[in-house]
Amino acid sequence: MQSMEIVLGVDIGGTNTALGLVDREGGCRATDVMPTQGEQPAPVFFDRLQSRAKALLEGLGPGFQLSAIGMGAPNANYYRGTIENPPNLSWGHVDLRAELAPYFQVPVVATNDANAAALGEMHFGAARGMRDFMVITLGTGLGSGIVVKGELVYGSTGFAGEVGHMIVESGGRLCGCGRLGCLETYASATGLRRTVRELLATGSETSELRGIPFERLSAKGIFDAAQKGDAIAQEAFEFTGDILGRKLADAVVFTSPEAIILFGGLAAAGELLFKPTRRALEENLFSVFRDTVKLLPSGIQGNAAILGAAALGWDALAKVAQPGSNR
Amino acid sequence: MQSMEIVLGVDIGGTNTALGLVDREGGCRATDVMPTQGEQPAPVFFDRLQSRAKALLEGLGPGFQLSAIGMGAPNANYYRGTIENPPNLSWGHVDLRAELAPYFQVPVVATNDANAAALGEMHFGAARGMRDFMVITLGTGLGSGIVVKGELVYGSTGFAGEVGHMIVESGGRLCGCGRLGCLETYASATGLRRTVRELLATGSETSELRGIPFERLSAKGIFDAAQKGDAIAQEAFEFTGDILGRKLADAVVFTSPEAIILFGGLAAAGELLFKPTRRALEENLFSVFRDTVKLLPSGIQGNAAILGAAALGWDALAKVAQPGSNR
Repeated sequence: MQSMEIVLGVDIGGTNTALGLVDREGGCRATDVMPTQGEQPAPVFFDRLQSRAKALLEGLGPGFQLSAIGMGAPNANYYRGTIENPPNLSWGHVDLRAELAPYFQVPVVATNDANAAALGEMHFGAARGMRDFMVITLGTGLGSGIVVKGELVYGSTGFAGEVGHMIVESGGRLCGCGRLGCLETYASATGLRRTVRELLATGSETSELRGIPFERLSAKGIFDAAQKGDAIAQEAFEFTGDILGRKLADAVVFTSPEAIILFGGLAAAGELLFKPTRRALEENLFSVFRDTVKLLPSGIQGNAAILGAAALGWDALAKVAQPGSNR
Repeated sequence: MQSMEIVLGVDIGGTNTALGLVDREGGCRATDVMPTQGEQPAPVFFDRLQSRAKALLEGLGPGFQLSAIGMGAPNANYYRGTIENPPNLSWGHVDLRAELAPYFQVPVVATNDANAAALGEMHFGAARGMRDFMVITLGTGLGSGIVVKGELVYGSTGFAGEVGHMIVESGGRLCGCGRLGCLETYASATGLRRTVRELLATGSETSELRGIPFERLSAKGIFDAAQKGDAIAQEAFEFTGDILGRKLADAVVFTSPEAIILFGGLAAAGELLFKPTRRALEENLFSVFRDTVKLLPSGIQGNAAILGAAALGWDALAKVAQPGSNR
C-alpha cells in the first residue's frame, strides 16, 4: 500500500506554538499546542517540538509519510531558513534546518505568519485559483503577504510585503518600529484601541467605552459596543476602515491584485470593518484598477495558522517537482 | 553561414515613433524616426511602420534574421497584445499582432514605456544581473516598471506598476487622472514646474524664474537656474526629491527591490534630484530595508526607448526558450 504524504505545519507565536499534520487538500489530521517558552534556548524548544510532532505522527497510525515541514514564525527569513532576533523570544539567530536535521530528513521552509497566511489562502482558502492577490493580517499589528503569478514575493532581502509599515501620516502615531505614522498604528487591533482613545479625548459623545480603562479596552470590546450602537465605537471602525481602504488603493498600483483578503482577529468584525474599507478603497483607486479588485474575508476555516504554515511546505514540494518555477 | 538574430524595437510616442534593430547584446544596428501622425487611422500607421522597418532590415545587408518585435506604447496591454484608447492618438482599440501579421511572421509583444524601460535596464543597463528592482521614469508624468524574480510584474489586469498614482496628499494637486494628490503631480517635470509656481506665489525670494511666464517655464530652465544658485529653483528640487524619496520608501515595503533606478528627463538633473531623494528614502525606510536599496541613474546610453522596447522582444524570446518561466 502506498503511504500518504503529509506536511507538518508549525506556527511559532510569542506565547504558544501550534503544530499540525496537514494533507494535500488542507485536511488537518492532527493538531497540538505547546507553550513556546521563548526564554529558554532554541535547542530546548526544538527538542520539545520534535517530540510533540513525532507523537502526532505516531498517533495517525501507519500509512502516512512526512514530506516537509513548513513554519510560520516572527522574523523568519525564507531564503536563509532562519529566524533572526525574533521579538519576545530569547533565541537570537536560529538556523531552522540545522535545528531540525537531527530529527527529520525532510525539507524545512519558513516565513513570517502573514506570508504563511497568504499561501494558506492560495492552497486552501479564498485565493484558490488566483495568481495575483494580497493577504492583509489584522491582529496586534498589520502583516501582509503578496502573491504575484502564483508565487510569494520575498524580494531581494526576503522581507518583502511589509504593508503595515507604509507611512499614513508624516509625524503621526508612534510605531513599535520606532517611526511615526505607520499604517499598523491605525489599522490593527492596537490601532483601533488608539483611535477610540483619541475619539474619547477629542469628542464628548456618550459612550460606554468611557468607563473602561485603556489597558482593558480590547478590539473585541469595541466591536461589541459598536454592535450595540455605541457612536464612538462605530466611528472608530469607520476611521480605521477609511485609512485602511485608502492605503490599499495605493497598494493596488504595485501588483494589481485580483483580490485583497483581510485575515485575522480584527477582520472578524465583518461589515463593521469591510464596509468603510471597501468604500475608501473604491473611492481612491486609480481608474484602470476600478472594479478589478475584490475585498474578501479569509476562506480558511479552523486552524488558519497551522494550515498557512503547512501550505508553505506543500508549496515547497510543488517547486521541487517543477524546479523551473523556483528562484 | 548562420544568420544573426535581431529584434525590432519600436517606441510609439504622441508625436514621433522611434524604431531600431537591436542585437542580443544591446547593440543598436540601425535606427529611424518617423512622425506618429496619430490623427490618422491605425492601419495607415502600421503600413508606414512596416515599410520603414523593412528598409532598415535591408540596409543591414544579408546575415540578419528578424526574430521578434517589441513595442513600447501608451496604454499597451502585455497580456492582450493591444493598445487601448491611447491618449493623444485617434486609434481606439488596436490589436498589434493583427496589424503586423501581414508583414512579419514573428512574435509581437507590447507594454507601456516604463515597463519597457525596466526591461531595457535589466538586459542592457543598470539592472544587469538583478532579479528584484524598480525603474521610475520621470518625464511629463511618473511611470514605473517593477521586476520581481527577473520578471516584470503585470498583475491581474496587465497594468501593474503605476507608482505615479499613489496618493501623496489627500486633497492635494489635481492629477490628469481626475484624482487629487497623485505622486506624479509632484515628482515629474510637470510637478517640478507646479512646485516652482507655488514657491513663487508663497515666498518673496529673488529669483530669475519670476521673469518667466508659467507656460514657458521648463524643467530644464529650472535646472539651469538651480545650477546658477537660484534659491527657488534649488528649493523646488529639494521639495520634489523629498516627496519622491518618501514615497519610494513606501514602495520598498511591497517588493523589497535591490535597486531603484531613476530614468528619463528629470532624472538627468543628477545630484540636484538624487541627493534629496536619497536622503528622504533612507530616512523613511522601514528598519529591515535600511541599507538594502540602491538609488541609481539609468545605465542605458543612447536610444533608451528603442533599447527598452527591443529588450521586451528579447525577453519574450527567452521565455519561449524556457516556457516554464512564462505565465
